Amino acid sequence: MRESEIITLFLKHLKKQGDIPLGDDAGAFRVGDEWLVITNDMLVGKTDVPNIMTPEEVGFKAVTMNVSDIAAMGARPIGFLFSIGIPGETSSEYLEGIAKGIGDALNYYNLPVISADTNEAGDLIIDGAALGITGSPLLRSGARPGDLVCITGDIGRALAGYLVWRNGVKIEKRIRDVIYEKFLRPIARVEAGLRLSGVANSAVDVSDGLSKELHLLAEKSGVRIDVAVEKLPIMEEVFEVSELLGMDPYILALGSGEEFELLFTLPPEKVADLDFQCTVIGRVVAGEGVYYRRSGKLKEMPLIGWEHLEPSDQKGYRSLFR
Amino acid sequence: MRESEIITLFLKHLKKQGDIPLGDDAGAFRVGDEWLVITNDMLVGKTDVPNIMTPEEVGFKAVTMNVSDIAAMGARPIGFLFSIGIPGETSSEYLEGIAKGIGDALNYYNLPVISADTNEAGDLIIDGAALGITGSPLLRSGARPGDLVCITGDIGRALAGYLVWRNGVKIEKRIRDVIYEKFLRPIARVEAGLRLSGVANSAVDVSDGLSKELHLLAEKSGVRIDVAVEKLPIMEEVFEVSELLGMDPYILALGSGEEFELLFTLPPEKVADLDFQCTVIGRVVAGEGVYYRRSGKLKEMPLIGWEHLEPSDQKGYRSLFR
Repeated sequence: MRESEIITLFLKHLKKQGDIPLGDDAGAFRVGDEWLVITNDMLVGKTDVPNIMTPEEVGFKAVTMNVSDIAAMGARPIGFLFSIGIPGETSSEYLEGIAKGIGDALNYYNLPVISADTNEAGDLIIDGAALGITGSPLLRSGARPGDLVCITGDIGRALAGYLVWRNGVKIEKRIRDVIYEKFLRPIARVEAGLRLSGVANSAVDVSDGLSKELHLLAEKSGVRIDVAVEKLPIMEEVFEVSELLGMDPYILALGSGEEFELLFTLPPEKVADLDFQCTVIGRVVAGEGVYYRRSGKLKEMPLIGWEHLEPSDQKGYRSLFR
Repeated sequence: MRESEIITLFLKHLKKQGDIPLGDDAGAFRVGDEWLVITNDMLVGKTDVPNIMTPEEVGFKAVTMNVSDIAAMGARPIGFLFSIGIPGETSSEYLEGIAKGIGDALNYYNLPVISADTNEAGDLIIDGAALGITGSPLLRSGARPGDLVCITGDIGRALAGYLVWRNGVKIEKRIRDVIYEKFLRPIARVEAGLRLSGVANSAVDVSDGLSKELHLLAEKSGVRIDVAVEKLPIMEEVFEVSELLGMDPYILALGSGEEFELLFTLPPEKVADLDFQCTVIGRVVAGEGVYYRRSGKLKEMPLIGWEHLEPSDQKGYRSLFR
């Protein structure tokens, strides 16, 4: 079954939802004058942990995945909880590494742990949940025609790192260090999210690739988004890896998931006030769908997902922008 | 590694904790005048799902496990979230059964779902989290000398059901129906928890067996607990199964986990006000440890855990009370 079919099947049976319906980065409740936001995200050893990842990085990432969803709601993270499923053969050194990674991340994000649960399981599982508080939650549905579309940081390194690792590509240490930093040790954009609360009209974190998130924002907000592909913040090292892999660097960047950058929209007059590093990559207009401008031509952007960028599928996608 | 070693290892690295330190049924935060309590609990296919359990029962139980921890804190459950890990070979009928079970439980407990996440995993995993609100959280550390020790409902059927299933014991349908009800379709004691908030001095839900929970209450509260074994609320069918299995029925009842009954302590004068079914099984005194009275003699109660009651270990425990 495809993930979308599974989600449809569950939604059929889950009719009672929170104050914000399912489908945003996190759920939310009104608590007095504020909103409590809460999210959960599961890290699965088999699919989410490359063999070059240290246990400390595994633990840190399990926290980041959850904190990023809180950041995308414009909320201040206030607590973390987790359940860990541990295969019988796991060494105590490995487990301690995970514990240290979770502890390091909690220090980094200044978060208390509020509940924890350990279990035996057939696969390594770290299912985290994070809570946050905000006066004004950022939703995926708030983009308005006239808004500019912006993104924090840079994109493409997570997938570039994955492809280098997966294909055993030999590259210079200089390049590898740069791309592996994002692939193995991504960071959630908590400060940016806090600044955007009450300022941006919509936001989402880049978990499943920028292309998917753009489609999501457009669909949930009932608007069209036009993106200038050549404005995407892509580091030189990603261009170098794309060249080595024979891939279109923009496809790679648009399909790169687990970047944990924030994609957001806001009225043009507010852009000047943003005091963190971000890039304007497009704008919101009336209509529907996602379009991209490249070499002066505007075309409809296909949905490019992480799962489509496995090596066996590269061929199909390399031609998308030709 | 033993679970206790794993927990020690994690606690070493998780120094920042919530407003109530780790080790209670749920974590808690102050939110205005109230406490927000939150818990998470993972259901693992390999260890938690007997092959006679329907997918609807699996889904229902994943909710109950979490709601029970909220009930044990004396809180009103206000939301549920979950991550599900799905093995590749799972049929859509099975998945739909789980979804229906979760939906049925949310209706039963009148809870909205506020976040959900699906993943592929090597084993079926449902990691749920529940939130609740209370003005006065019930803790494991509040038992005071002079308190009476009480428990809701009855105990023993969960383990009796497990042992009947595990050993393929042939028993009358009449008995099986009664014990399987608790083994396969346990219910969290939400109403009792709400009534106990502000009334009881301490509470815990029976997840790991009454013996373990009694030791936990005594240890966390710094008191001694004396229990009258013959007062334990054990249904006739549990005595019948014990007889068939050649086990001491009180050992079976004290070791039976996932009962989801509430064990609580409160001042004697408040017992008359309780308007739900519960049984006084003992009292809190100054000192430490857990003692049991049987046939007029008082002895120290050993820790009897679910994991000690596997068929191979029965012998060792049958003699405990002799």
